[in-house]
Amino acid sequence: MKKAIFYHAGCPVCVSAEQNFVNLIDRDAVSTEIVHLGQNSNRITEAESAGVKSVPALLLDGQVYHINYGASLEDVKKG
Amino acid sequence: MKKAIFYHAGCPVCVSAEQNFVNLIDRDAVSTEIVHLGQNSNRITEAESAGVKSVPALLLDGQVYHINYGASLEDVKKG
Repeated sequence: MKKAIFYHAGCPVCVSAEQNFVNLIDRDAVSTEIVHLGQNSNRITEAESAGVKSVPALLLDGQVYHINYGASLEDVKKG
Repeated sequence: MKKAIFYHAGCPVCVSAEQNFVNLIDRDAVSTEIVHLGQNSNRITEAESAGVKSVPALLLDGQVYHINYGASLEDVKKG
């Protein structure tokens, strides 16, 4: 099974993307982990290393898909 | 069943998004139409009205999700 990570920060754009979009991913094919970078700031470095520039973003097979624009990773770091 | 429209223009970013991302959408829950705006330029106005600014983009429940950035709609119009 593929594994995806959805990084977000609780912003309205993030919540919209999560509810309308990530929930539609086929659960039989992909296991999606949801990571709130505001609450799990220890995961920010990992996200940055993977190429995440802004949230919301979906990491899948080593590729980052930035979905619209909620906040930059720099802003998330500032809290 | 929900209906989604994936607008693209054949660009590498579009193809990546389609193959790795759109294909993971749960087909039991969502019927996804793939529209190549380069080949179907008569659909550009419809995409623009829906709020599509660039491709690739997914239209779902009236919301536009721009997935990374391949080309602006203006560039697609120029062909």
